[in-house]
Amino acid sequence: MNQDATVLKSKIIETFGTPCAVIDLDIVERNIAKVQALCDATGLNNRPHIKTHKSPLLANMQIAAGAKGITCQKLGEAEVMVDAGITDIIIATNLLGAAKSGRLAALQRRVPLKVCADNPVSLAEYSKAATDAGRALDLMIECDTGQQRAGVETPAEALALAKIIKSDPMLNFVGLLFYPSLDGWPKTQKFYNDVSAGLAELGMHADIVSTGGSPNLKHMGELKGSTEHRAGTCIFNDLMMITAGVATLEDCAFQVYTSVVSRGSPERGILDAGSKTLTADTGGLDGFGYIVEHPTARIHKFAEEHGFLDLSKCNNKPAVGDIVRVIPNHVCVAVNMVDQLVAVRGEEVVDIVPVAARGKLV
Amino acid sequence: MNQDATVLKSKIIETFGTPCAVIDLDIVERNIAKVQALCDATGLNNRPHIKTHKSPLLANMQIAAGAKGITCQKLGEAEVMVDAGITDIIIATNLLGAAKSGRLAALQRRVPLKVCADNPVSLAEYSKAATDAGRALDLMIECDTGQQRAGVETPAEALALAKIIKSDPMLNFVGLLFYPSLDGWPKTQKFYNDVSAGLAELGMHADIVSTGGSPNLKHMGELKGSTEHRAGTCIFNDLMMITAGVATLEDCAFQVYTSVVSRGSPERGILDAGSKTLTADTGGLDGFGYIVEHPTARIHKFAEEHGFLDLSKCNNKPAVGDIVRVIPNHVCVAVNMVDQLVAVRGEEVVDIVPVAARGKLV
Repeated sequence: MNQDATVLKSKIIETFGTPCAVIDLDIVERNIAKVQALCDATGLNNRPHIKTHKSPLLANMQIAAGAKGITCQKLGEAEVMVDAGITDIIIATNLLGAAKSGRLAALQRRVPLKVCADNPVSLAEYSKAATDAGRALDLMIECDTGQQRAGVETPAEALALAKIIKSDPMLNFVGLLFYPSLDGWPKTQKFYNDVSAGLAELGMHADIVSTGGSPNLKHMGELKGSTEHRAGTCIFNDLMMITAGVATLEDCAFQVYTSVVSRGSPERGILDAGSKTLTADTGGLDGFGYIVEHPTARIHKFAEEHGFLDLSKCNNKPAVGDIVRVIPNHVCVAVNMVDQLVAVRGEEVVDIVPVAARGKLV
Repeated sequence: MNQDATVLKSKIIETFGTPCAVIDLDIVERNIAKVQALCDATGLNNRPHIKTHKSPLLANMQIAAGAKGITCQKLGEAEVMVDAGITDIIIATNLLGAAKSGRLAALQRRVPLKVCADNPVSLAEYSKAATDAGRALDLMIECDTGQQRAGVETPAEALALAKIIKSDPMLNFVGLLFYPSLDGWPKTQKFYNDVSAGLAELGMHADIVSTGGSPNLKHMGELKGSTEHRAGTCIFNDLMMITAGVATLEDCAFQVYTSVVSRGSPERGILDAGSKTLTADTGGLDGFGYIVEHPTARIHKFAEEHGFLDLSKCNNKPAVGDIVRVIPNHVCVAVNMVDQLVAVRGEEVVDIVPVAARGKLV
C-alpha cells in the first residue's frame, strides 16, 4: 500500500475536498482478475454481485474479465444495469412490492430476467408481471441452509414451489440459489441433493446452481453440482473481508480520504467523516474503520458528519488539518452513501465513477 | 395517525413499489409551525438545521413560516441551498478539507456565509478562502460545554480564537455556537458569561448566540443571551425524539413503506427494507424502527436490503405481501439514503421531494 500518498492527497483535497470516497483501479483490476481466476480454476461461472459498487462501468469491467453475468439485489439496480447494456442478470431477492409496481414487467419487456422466490405469493406476483410483460420470467428458488435469511428452509418447500412454477406457463424454472454459511457447505450439499432428486422425479432440472458470498470464496466449488458463484465485496474488500481471511490491507481498493478537523483534547480527535459517510454498520467488528496512517487510533463513535477518535493508544497523533485514509468495516454500505467515486491509479486521479444505482430504494 | 392507509398503500405500491420513503406534508407543516411558535414565544430566531431533510423545498417552507435562516452541516448542503436562493446560512462545522478545495471560496463569492471554527488551523484556511473569494467570512466560534464533540473546551480557548479573528481583516467575528447536553444548560450559561466578559474586554461582542438540537427544544431560551436556536430532526421526528420526550408517534412525518417478502418460519419475517434503507444507526435504541401495523414485531437485524423480524411477541403476525410502515430510530440518516421522498397528504400522493443535498460527501 502507498504509505503516505502525499501527492495524491494534495490533488484530492484541491479538486474535491474531504471527505472523499476513492477507489484504486489497479487494486480493483487485480481483485477482479483474482476472483475470475478462482472461478476458472473451479470450473464455475462468475456472476459478481454488483450491490457492492452499483456501477455499470465496474460491472462491465467484470464482464470483460470473464464474468458470465451479474447479480443484483434490487430492481432499481437491474434497471441501471440494463440501461448499460447488461443482459444476463439474476435479481437475488423476492421482489414483491417492486413486482407489484409494474416496473418489473417494464424491465422484463426489455430483457429476460432471472428472479428469485421463496414463497408462493412472490410466484403469483412474478406470474402477473410476466403476463403484463408478455414474456415468461426465469425463476430461481432461493434456499436457506442455515443463515436464517431469506430462502425456503426445507427441500420439500423448494419442491412445492417448483411444482407451482412448472404448472405456470409464465414461469420457467431455471435453478437454485444458495448462500451457505461458512460451515454450512455439507448441509447445503445434502439440501441440494435432496432437491435435485425431487426435481428429477418431477421431470425438472436446475440448470443454474448458484452459491454466494465473498467470505465463501475459500469454499467455492465445494458444492458438487454448483454451476456458478456470486461474490460482491471482493471487488473492493474491507475489514470484514480481512477478518474473514479472504483479503489483506493491500487488497482494499476503497478508502475514504478525511481531514482531522478538531482535536478537542490530547486524547481526542474528530474526522470530517461520520455515519453519513462511513455508516453506522460495524459489520460486527470493533470501531468504525482502519486508519491507514494511524492504525492504533480508534474511531469509536460517529455523529452524522463527524468521526470521533480515541487517540490514547496512538504515539504519533494526527494534527488538525492532516488528511488520513479510512478503510471501512463494510465497504458495500459505504459506497452506497455517495453519488460518485474518485478513481485513482497510484498517485494519479484518472476518472470519476458514478455510483449509478444508488439512492433508488426500490 | 392513519391506522390502515389501505388506499395510500395501493397508490404507493402501484406507482413506486417498495421500499418507499414517504413524508406526510400535513404533519411536516404542523411540525414546522410548532417549532416556529416555540421560537417566537421565547423571542429567539429560528435557524432550522437542514441536515435532516436536505431539501431546498422544505427549507423554503421553514423560511416562509418565519425562520430567519438555516443551518447546514457541510459545504455541499450549503451549495444546494444557495442554488435555491437561500442566503442566511451557518455552516455549523469546522471546514478544513472542504475549505482547502476552493469550493468554499467559490460559494463565499456568491453569498456571505457564516462558518464555524474551534481551532487556529481552520481559521487560517477560512482566511485563505475569504481572500480567494475577495470577501471576508463571518466567523462563529464553536464551544463544547460537555458533549465532547467539536468545539473549544474552555472560555480561554474561545477568546484566543476571538483574538486571531479580530486581528485578521478577512474574518469577521459574529458569534458563538453551542450544542448543550440536556443537563448542560447551567454549564453553558457559565461558559457563555465568561466568554462574553472576555469578549467585552477585547472590544468584541457576539451578535449571534446560537443553541442547537431538537431534544433541546424543551430548554430553548434557558441560555440568557442566546439569540437563536438550531433544530433539525423536529421537522420529521423519529423514535429518538419520542424517547427524548419532544414528539409522539402522531408527530412522525417520515415513514418507510416496506413489503413483507418472506416468512422463513412462524416466528420469523423479512422486510424489503434493510441497512441501505433504514441504516444500521440505532440511535442508542433497541431494534431498528417501529412498525405502525405491528408494534410488537421487532426488527432485530438488517442485511443490506432486508430487515429481519422477530414475530415471537406478535399475536397478529404479518403475511407475505403485506405492506407495513416503519418509523425509523433516527430519521436524519434514513432520509439521507434516498434521492427522493414521496410527499402525501392523508391518503393522496401530492408531490415528489428531491433530497437534493444528499450523496455529495463534501
